[in-house]
Amino acid sequence: MTGNEGVTAAAGFRAAGIVAGLKKSGKADLALVVNDGPRFEAAGVFTRNKVKAAPVLWSQQVLTTGVLRAVVLNAGGANACTGPEGFQTAHATAEKAAEVLGCGAVEVAICSTGLIGEQLPRDTVLAGVAKAAGELAGTPEAGTAVAGAIMTTDTVPKQAAETDPAGWTVGGTTKGAGMIAPSMATMLTVITTDAVLHQRDLDAALRTAVHYSFDRLDVDGSMSTNDTVLLLSSGASGVAADPDVFTGALTRACQDLARQMQADAEGVSKRISVRVTGAATEDDAVTVARTIARDALVKTAMFGCDPNWGRVAAAAGYADAEVDPDRLDVTINGVLLCKGAVVAGDRAACDLSGKDVLIEVSLGLTGGAEANTAEIRTTDLSHAYVEENSAYSS
Amino acid sequence: MTGNEGVTAAAGFRAAGIVAGLKKSGKADLALVVNDGPRFEAAGVFTRNKVKAAPVLWSQQVLTTGVLRAVVLNAGGANACTGPEGFQTAHATAEKAAEVLGCGAVEVAICSTGLIGEQLPRDTVLAGVAKAAGELAGTPEAGTAVAGAIMTTDTVPKQAAETDPAGWTVGGTTKGAGMIAPSMATMLTVITTDAVLHQRDLDAALRTAVHYSFDRLDVDGSMSTNDTVLLLSSGASGVAADPDVFTGALTRACQDLARQMQADAEGVSKRISVRVTGAATEDDAVTVARTIARDALVKTAMFGCDPNWGRVAAAAGYADAEVDPDRLDVTINGVLLCKGAVVAGDRAACDLSGKDVLIEVSLGLTGGAEANTAEIRTTDLSHAYVEENSAYSS
Repeated sequence: MTGNEGVTAAAGFRAAGIVAGLKKSGKADLALVVNDGPRFEAAGVFTRNKVKAAPVLWSQQVLTTGVLRAVVLNAGGANACTGPEGFQTAHATAEKAAEVLGCGAVEVAICSTGLIGEQLPRDTVLAGVAKAAGELAGTPEAGTAVAGAIMTTDTVPKQAAETDPAGWTVGGTTKGAGMIAPSMATMLTVITTDAVLHQRDLDAALRTAVHYSFDRLDVDGSMSTNDTVLLLSSGASGVAADPDVFTGALTRACQDLARQMQADAEGVSKRISVRVTGAATEDDAVTVARTIARDALVKTAMFGCDPNWGRVAAAAGYADAEVDPDRLDVTINGVLLCKGAVVAGDRAACDLSGKDVLIEVSLGLTGGAEANTAEIRTTDLSHAYVEENSAYSS
Repeated sequence: MTGNEGVTAAAGFRAAGIVAGLKKSGKADLALVVNDGPRFEAAGVFTRNKVKAAPVLWSQQVLTTGVLRAVVLNAGGANACTGPEGFQTAHATAEKAAEVLGCGAVEVAICSTGLIGEQLPRDTVLAGVAKAAGELAGTPEAGTAVAGAIMTTDTVPKQAAETDPAGWTVGGTTKGAGMIAPSMATMLTVITTDAVLHQRDLDAALRTAVHYSFDRLDVDGSMSTNDTVLLLSSGASGVAADPDVFTGALTRACQDLARQMQADAEGVSKRISVRVTGAATEDDAVTVARTIARDALVKTAMFGCDPNWGRVAAAAGYADAEVDPDRLDVTINGVLLCKGAVVAGDRAACDLSGKDVLIEVSLGLTGGAEANTAEIRTTDLSHAYVEENSAYSS
């Protein structure tokens, strides 16, 4: 998290994170990311929740052109379930950014996060946009300021970057610590690159990267109304990137950000990876891993340092996927505890005192170790999770 | 819970609940329910979990005849994930009951509950069956002893009965406080009746009753390996029951038992009913209600007495059902907080200090108030739930 790792890592971008006055804490709460070009191709992936926040509705609309010049992000309010007034706030925010940056409102995406169901103070937001525009810089500090301004229950800013030997860079930032169960995107993420790519290649790369990163993170099974991942390209490196190489770098950057989200998830005391192998299909592997990762009894057992593999086997058994109990093996932190759905090892040999837990489930339905495999990252269900989420809106 | 409300409420049944020595606590842990006839039609519904406990595999097999003379139930071990040895234990238990009762082993169902993945001490179980056979009685006390012997994390015994003016009775008992998300049955339930009914009518009545009772209860989204609901009929009243009237009485008894399970669920501090109306289909109503009932953020908000309706709207929005945000209303404890997915009422007016919470979600997709409606009962997500479930197997 040191050096230039965030949205200003790539050439052609300036950014700012400032105090607009939306958070009661008085901390930074509004960010602006600007693409100075020379190119402006962009792509986005949004929540599939049918209840979409106003900024999601706005940003989906402007992204249909495949072009973005700027993104305004705010914490301190999700602007979700706010009706026409909330949509007008998102629109006015884009208009304000367009005015101060000298572009069109349809070239400005909006992202919001915070409590659902309260109107944002529109004048406060618009004044914040003007203030942020006056502080834009292409420095690492400016990138880190963006990462800080979008935090809600996050405790640390989250940034990542990958630089390709060919001469281009992809970098970004994310926020999110709860209400995380994206099935196509997660929370607010902005990624920038100076690589030269066609918009359709950018779009395909983003979908692939999200599929293997944020889509494989599941903190609490709750899909947000505001999930947004944006990818902006400036082309400022002047280097045309090979789409496959770019997709690889983008995927690694997104996985890095997803790992940081897992480590900072609400109430986390264990970082749990559920790795499923030998499924009938990759989709089945994801389904079984996600079902185990979401199971409240598995999550509480891990919190209690209890290698209760029976709960893992039970969760695999109710997953909506092909499962043959006779071939179901469960290994926790390297100790084989269950073979063919029958008790195999010694619970006492399984050490769960550390912060990292690896739950490996072999379904034995396909041969190759790499075939039809998926890994979902999750967290335990702790007293701290209950505490944090029982007092969030008050 | 006073009077004769359990498995001995109906004529023609004797029962016993005894200390076999399976629970470390030394409490009662084995029960025997015997049908003395003159008829022996029976029906059963079992977990759809692909990982099925040995007693489920055994009982499913013997139920194919549609006849049962007895049921042996034990707490202190689920006999799940125990392989051929575990199945032999279930088989030997049925053989032992058959020997002491003078019937066939294929007329004896077995139900077990407790920790997954440990072998039951077979000799202890067999000795317990013999002991229980010596204590059989048709008294209310014997029924209550059965209810007590099958408890695990339950804190109270659970029984219910309905008597029809025509002269027949249906009564039963259940256990279950966690790992409850049946999608067709739940935990261990034994219901008896002295009504005269064809086996196919018994079977149909049981499926309907379960659909509108245990299937509408969801404590933690985790489906057990051992869920079993059995219905035994003795015909001892000599009265032929109208199948529709019987189905109604059976459904009421099952709903009574499900309510008792909700009230005694692990760590419960709130009894939450999620009522969805105006869905496109009844299945959609169930799906939306279940998704809200399972949402960890909704459950923690209720624990915190926080009318955070945005989380309810978000959960409705990610449910796999038809949802139109513009028609989505949310009412909590009588206060309309959200209309058309937009903030409507005052959070402060919503009093969540009591133990009961009613979350009403109107989807507005069908007109009639009764059309396509479903209610799911659940509980909050509390510190006590985390505490209980992080220390269960140790």
